[in-house]
Amino acid sequence: MGGCPKLRSVVLGCAAIMVSAGAVLGQAIVPAEISRQTKECLECHQKLDTSVYQQWGMSKHYRANVGCFECHSASTEDVDAFQHEGFTIAILVTPKDCARCHSVETEQFSGSHHSKAGRILGSLDNVLAEVVEGNKGMVTPGFPGGVSASAVNGCWQCHGSQIKVLPNGKLDPATWPNSGIGRINPDGSEGSCNACHVRHSFSTAQARHPDTCGKCHLGPDHPQKEIYEESKHGIAFFSNIDKMNLESAKWIVGEDYFAAPTCATCHMSATKGQPVTHDVGMRISWNNRPVMSVRPEVSDAKMGLPGADVSWQVRRSNMQDVCLSCHEQQWVDNFYVQYDSLIELYNEKFARPGKALYTLAKPLIRPVAFGNKIDFTWFELWHHEGRRARHGASMMAPDYTHWHGMYEVARNFYTEYVPELEELVEKGLHSDDPAKVEAAKALQAKLEEVLNTDDHKWYLGKTDPAEAAARKKAAEDFKARYK
Amino acid sequence: MGGCPKLRSVVLGCAAIMVSAGAVLGQAIVPAEISRQTKECLECHQKLDTSVYQQWGMSKHYRANVGCFECHSASTEDVDAFQHEGFTIAILVTPKDCARCHSVETEQFSGSHHSKAGRILGSLDNVLAEVVEGNKGMVTPGFPGGVSASAVNGCWQCHGSQIKVLPNGKLDPATWPNSGIGRINPDGSEGSCNACHVRHSFSTAQARHPDTCGKCHLGPDHPQKEIYEESKHGIAFFSNIDKMNLESAKWIVGEDYFAAPTCATCHMSATKGQPVTHDVGMRISWNNRPVMSVRPEVSDAKMGLPGADVSWQVRRSNMQDVCLSCHEQQWVDNFYVQYDSLIELYNEKFARPGKALYTLAKPLIRPVAFGNKIDFTWFELWHHEGRRARHGASMMAPDYTHWHGMYEVARNFYTEYVPELEELVEKGLHSDDPAKVEAAKALQAKLEEVLNTDDHKWYLGKTDPAEAAARKKAAEDFKARYK
Amino acid sequence: MGGCPKLRSVVLGCAAIMVSAGAVLGQAIVPAEISRQTKECLECHQKLDTSVYQQWGMSKHYRANVGCFECHSASTEDVDAFQHEGFTIAILVTPKDCARCHSVETEQFSGSHHSKAGRILGSLDNVLAEVVEGNKGMVTPGFPGGVSASAVNGCWQCHGSQIKVLPNGKLDPATWPNSGIGRINPDGSEGSCNACHVRHSFSTAQARHPDTCGKCHLGPDHPQKEIYEESKHGIAFFSNIDKMNLESAKWIVGEDYFAAPTCATCHMSATKGQPVTHDVGMRISWNNRPVMSVRPEVSDAKMGLPGADVSWQVRRSNMQDVCLSCHEQQWVDNFYVQYDSLIELYNEKFARPGKALYTLAKPLIRPVAFGNKIDFTWFELWHHEGRRARHGASMMAPDYTHWHGMYEVARNFYTEYVPELEELVEKGLHSDDPAKVEAAKALQAKLEEVLNTDDHKWYLGKTDPAEAAARKKAAEDFKARYK
Repeated sequence: MGGCPKLRSVVLGCAAIMVSAGAVLGQAIVPAEISRQTKECLECHQKLDTSVYQQWGMSKHYRANVGCFECHSASTEDVDAFQHEGFTIAILVTPKDCARCHSVETEQFSGSHHSKAGRILGSLDNVLAEVVEGNKGMVTPGFPGGVSASAVNGCWQCHGSQIKVLPNGKLDPATWPNSGIGRINPDGSEGSCNACHVRHSFSTAQARHPDTCGKCHLGPDHPQKEIYEESKHGIAFFSNIDKMNLESAKWIVGEDYFAAPTCATCHMSATKGQPVTHDVGMRISWNNRPVMSVRPEVSDAKMGLPGADVSWQVRRSNMQDVCLSCHEQQWVDNFYVQYDSLIELYNEKFARPGKALYTLAKPLIRPVAFGNKIDFTWFELWHHEGRRARHGASMMAPDYTHWHGMYEVARNFYTEYVPELEELVEKGLHSDDPAKVEAAKALQAKLEEVLNTDDHKWYLGKTDPAEAAARKKAAEDFKARYK
Repeated sequence: MGGCPKLRSVVLGCAAIMVSAGAVLGQAIVPAEISRQTKECLECHQKLDTSVYQQWGMSKHYRANVGCFECHSASTEDVDAFQHEGFTIAILVTPKDCARCHSVETEQFSGSHHSKAGRILGSLDNVLAEVVEGNKGMVTPGFPGGVSASAVNGCWQCHGSQIKVLPNGKLDPATWPNSGIGRINPDGSEGSCNACHVRHSFSTAQARHPDTCGKCHLGPDHPQKEIYEESKHGIAFFSNIDKMNLESAKWIVGEDYFAAPTCATCHMSATKGQPVTHDVGMRISWNNRPVMSVRPEVSDAKMGLPGADVSWQVRRSNMQDVCLSCHEQQWVDNFYVQYDSLIELYNEKFARPGKALYTLAKPLIRPVAFGNKIDFTWFELWHHEGRRARHGASMMAPDYTHWHGMYEVARNFYTEYVPELEELVEKGLHSDDPAKVEAAKALQAKLEEVLNTDDHKWYLGKTDPAEAAARKKAAEDFKARYK
Repeated sequence: MGGCPKLRSVVLGCAAIMVSAGAVLGQAIVPAEISRQTKECLECHQKLDTSVYQQWGMSKHYRANVGCFECHSASTEDVDAFQHEGFTIAILVTPKDCARCHSVETEQFSGSHHSKAGRILGSLDNVLAEVVEGNKGMVTPGFPGGVSASAVNGCWQCHGSQIKVLPNGKLDPATWPNSGIGRINPDGSEGSCNACHVRHSFSTAQARHPDTCGKCHLGPDHPQKEIYEESKHGIAFFSNIDKMNLESAKWIVGEDYFAAPTCATCHMSATKGQPVTHDVGMRISWNNRPVMSVRPEVSDAKMGLPGADVSWQVRRSNMQDVCLSCHEQQWVDNFYVQYDSLIELYNEKFARPGKALYTLAKPLIRPVAFGNKIDFTWFELWHHEGRRARHGASMMAPDYTHWHGMYEVARNFYTEYVPELEELVEKGLHSDDPAKVEAAKALQAKLEEVLNTDDHKWYLGKTDPAEAAARKKAAEDFKARYK
C-alpha cells in the first residue's frame, strides 16, 4: 500500500470526498448519500452482521455516508486485498486508510509513542514472552518455525503485532485479531485507530472514556487506570458521568463540561486555549517508563520522533493550561513541586544506585537474561514498583505512590536486592576466578558506598544521633500535643 | 422436602398455577391476583420490611402475583418449616421451590458445575480453610465440636454451605446467611438461585450484569471479573450500559442489543439461534480449573454430570455462534487459534513437567499438606498464576495473560520452584535414608531432563547458538529499521 | 484563627446568617440574596475559573446564596489571610469555617477518628515514609531542612498534612494541595470537609457515593473499596445506581431508597430511627486497625475521643438498626456470629502468638526499625493481610476474607514468619553473647509452645489421629455421596 492506492477506487467512486478546494489538506467533504457499493455490501451484511450494522448505524460515519466500502475497499496492489462478491476489499483498515479523511489526527498520532508501541517487539520484554515464558510451539502459516503464544496473547495485544498476510487476503492467526496501538500494518503504517475508536461505532465518547485507555494502561507495571480511579479525578468522573457531556462534538473543558477530567481531557482534548492532539506525549513533562525518569524530549529524540524538539517545559505548560481549567495557579505550581520531588526521590535514592549496582553485579551472575533471581528483583523494582510510585504521584493517587509504590520499592531494595547483592559479593570473594574476585570487590565497594550515603545509612543503624533524637522528640511532642 | 411438599399448600391455594394443560411441564400460569395469604403477610411486613416489600414491588413476581406466601410457604414435613402467625413457612427458598415455576431453568442449573460448587467442601481447599488457616473455634448449635470461621466466612460464601436446621426452623449461624451457588439445602437440592437473582427483586437485568458474576469470579485464583473489565467486551459494556437494554424480557444479542456482551451474553443468554441456558458450561471448550486444562466433558464425566455427553467441539460451536453475532468467521477462528496455543504453552511447558516434578518431590518433603513452602509455590503456580494466564487468554485480557499470568508462572517456576526442588535434591542426596537418596536421584534426573528440553534449556544457557544469533540479529534489525 | 475570627466580616456583612433566635445553635439562616462581596468576586472568577463557578452553580450553596466570600473571607488576624482586590481572604476553608453553618456535623466529625488521621504523622508509618522510603530531599520554604517526598505525596494525601503558611497567605507546597481528612489547619482545627464534600459542588450525593470513600479506603492495607465492590451491597449499588435517589435531601434507607446501601448508608446516613452522624465510628463494633482487633471504645479512650463512653454494644445496635432496614433479625444475628468468629480466629490463632513471638525476637534482630526482613513479614501479616481478612468478613466479601486475607496470613505465618524465627533462634543459640543465647532460648520455647497448640500442631504433623481419620472419612463420605 505504499503510495496508498487502497482507497483509489473510493476516491473515484465518491469524487466529492477529496475534491476539497480550499479545505485543510486531506480533510474530507461528506458524500451526499450512501454509496452504491456500500448499499450492495449492506444487502447481505445488514442481516449477517446485524450488530456491526447497528453499531455503524449509531456512528458519525453513518451520518456522513461513510460506509463499508469507503473504509474496506482496497486496490489490487494491496498485499492484503482480496476479491469478494465483485469488489476488491481488505479486512484491515489502517491509519493510512483513516488518514484519507482524518489526516491531521493521523499525523499527530504518527509522531506519538503510541504509534511506536510495536517496536518493543525487539526489546527485553520480548525475551520474557518469547524465551522465559514462551516457546516456539505456536506454528501458523505465517510462523512455520513457530512463535510464542505468550507474546501473541500477551504483549502483542496491547503493543501491536506485525501483521502477516496469507494467500487470499487472509491474516495469519498469530497476528490477527489484533488491535494493538502500535500494530505494524502490511502497508507499512504503524498503529491501529480502532485500539481506541473501537468497533463500528468509532465513538468519540467511547475514546474519551477512561476505560478505553484502561485496555492497556493497567496492571502491575503501569496501573494508570487504577491510579485514575483512586484519584479525585476518577472519583468525580465515575460518579458524575451523566454530567460529562461525552457525546458532544465540541468538548472543551471548562466550557462543555465541568464535573471531572478523563484521561483524554488532560492528555489529548481541547481546552479554551489548546486544540485536541492525538500525540499523547505533548503534555507530559516526565517520561516515567525507563529505570530513571527522563524528560520526554530525550526519549522522543532516541526514537526519532518530532517531539525531540518540544521541551518538557513547553509540555508542562500545555498541561498546566488544562489544570487551570479547574485549579488556580498556586495549586498547580505546588502540585508540580510535590510531583517533581517524588521523581527526584525515586531517581536518586533508588534508581541511580540500583542501576549502578546491577551493572557491577553482572559479572557475578549467570550470563542468561532472567536466569537469576536478582534479574527479576531489579526488573520489578523499577519496571513495576518504581513506575507505580511515579505514576501514582503524577496523578495524585497516594495509595499507589506509597503502598503499591515507594513502600514496595524500599522493602524490596532492602530485604531482597541488598541481601542478594551481598550474597553475590560473598560468593565472588571466594571464587577461584580472579576476575570474579575483582568484580566482587568492586561491587562490595559500591554497595558500601551506597549504604553509607545519607539516603541509606539508617539501614546500617548509622542515623545521625542528633537526627535520631530529633525524630524521637518530634514524635513524642506530636503525641503529647494530643494527650 | 423430599417429594417437594413445601409448595403443596400453594398449589391447593392457587390451583391455576399448575393446571397448565398443553404448556411445557412445570411452567406456571400466572395467578389472577395476589393471594389471600400473601396479603396477610403484607399486613405486617409492608411496614416492618419496607425495603423487601419495595424490592418485590419492582419485580416480575409482583406483576405475576407471586408473593411472600407463594415462595416461603412450607409443608409441616419440611425440616426447616416453622409456624408463624398461623402459617407454615420456611426461610430458605431452594431450587426445588423455584422449580415449581421455573423447572427448565432449574434443570439446566442442576446439570451445571455451578450447582456442584458445595462439593468442594471435602477437597483440598477445605484443608486450607479448616486446618491451615482455621481451627475449630467457631462453636454453634449445628457444630458443637466447632468449625473453622475461615471456611464459614470464606469458602462457603461462594461455594455454598451445607445448611443445618435448628429447632423451630432456625438456621445454624455457621451455615446461614449463605447464598453460595452450590449450597446444599435441607431438601437435598443443590444450589441457590438467589446467588444471582438477588434480593427480592429477582431481577433478570441484575443477573445479566457482570458485577453479579463478580461476586465469586474475582481475585487471585480466578479473576474473571477483572479480566472482563480489561477486555474490550467489558470496556464496551461499562461505557455503554444505557444501550444494553438489560431490562428487556427478550434479550437476544444482535437483535435486542448491539453494544457489548456481558458474562451472561456469552455463557448463558439467547442468540438468534440458541436459547438461554442455565448450565454455564455448555459453551466453554476448555476447563481451566485443574492443574492442566482439560476438555469440559472430561470433568463433567468425573462429576457425573449430563455434560459428559456434550463434546467440547459442540460447546465451542455454541460459543462461536455467540461470537458471530458481532465478529466474522475468520476473526473467530483466528481467536481460537490464539487461545488454544496459550493453553498448549501453559500445559506443556509448565503444568505437565511441574506436576511430574511435584510428584517426585513428595517423598522428600514433610508429609503434611501445606506444611512445606514448596506446597504453596506449586499450588499458586497452577491454581493462581496459571489460571490467570489461561482465563486471561480466554477473554482477551493481555495484562492477565502476560503480567498477572505467564510472567508470574515463569518467574516463580525458575526463581522459586526450581531452586526449591534443587534444594530438596541436595538434601535428599545427603540423607541417611536410602529411600530418600533414591527419591532425590529420581527427582534430580527428572529436573535435568526438564531443564534440558527445548522449552527450558535457555535457563541453562544452552540456547542453540544459531537461534541465539538469529534472536540477536532480529532484535538489531528491528531496531535498525526505526533508526 | 483561635476564637474563629475568620468569618467575622461575613457575619457583619450578612447579619441574617447568624441571627437565628430559636434555631439550633450555630445552624444558619439562608441569606436573601448573593452578597455584594461574592458578586464582586464573580466579576473576574466567573470567567477565570468557569469550572469552579459552574460547580458552585450546581451546589446547594448557590441556592442558599452562600458564595465565594462567605467561605473564603478571613480576618486579618488569621495567619493565612491575605489581601486580594480589597478583600481579606484565605485559600483554606477549614472545619472551623464550615462550622459557622454546619456546627452539628463539624462537632460529630471532630469526635471521630477521621478528624485525627493527621496524628499518625508521628507514628511508625511515618518512619516508613520518612526514613525507609524517603529522605530529606524535598526542600521548601516551610521545610528548609527538607522533608520526605514519599510522606508528602503518600501518607499526607489521605491522612492530612500539617499546613504551613508562607508570607502573603501562600501555602507551603509540601503541605498543600492537601485534602487529607485529618489535615491540621493553621487555625488549630483538624480535618478537611472537602475530603468528601469535594470541589465547589460540595455535593451530598457525591459524599454518599462509595467511590468518594475509596479515595483512601483501598489498597493492600485496608481495601474497603474493593471489599464493598465484591459484596452484594456493592454489586447492588453499582448496577442500580439510578434507583438510589442519591440527590434527595431526605435520604432515609427503607424510605427514600431500597436498592442498595452505600458506605454512607451503613456508617453515617439516616434510618427510620437514627439520624445522620458524621462520626463514622458510632456503628462499628470492632476496630480492626490494630494488630489485634479491639473494641472501638478502647481506641477512642486512647485518643481521648468522646466515643470512649459509647460501648461496642450500643454501636452494634446502631448498625443492626441499619441492617434491619433490609434484613430480618435472625439474618443479622447470624451474620454477627459469623463475623465475630472470624475476628476471634484471626486474633487468637495468629495475632496474639505472632505479637508475642515478635516481642521475643526483638533482642535477636538488628535494632533498626524495618532494618530486618522479619520486620516487614510481621508488619504485613497484621497490617495488610490480617486487616484484609477482618475487613472482608465485616462486609461479606469472601475473596478478601479468604484468598487475600486468611490464606495469605496463614501462608506467610508458616512459610515466612516461622522459618525466619527459627533462623533467629538458630543464630542466637550459637551467639557469643550470653544475652542473645538467653533470648534465643526464650524465643525457641515460645515458638515450640505456639506450634504445639491445637491451632498449630497440624504443622508439626501432630494432628490428633482420631481427628485426622475423621477428616479423611468426612472427605471420602462427602465425595462418595456424589459418585
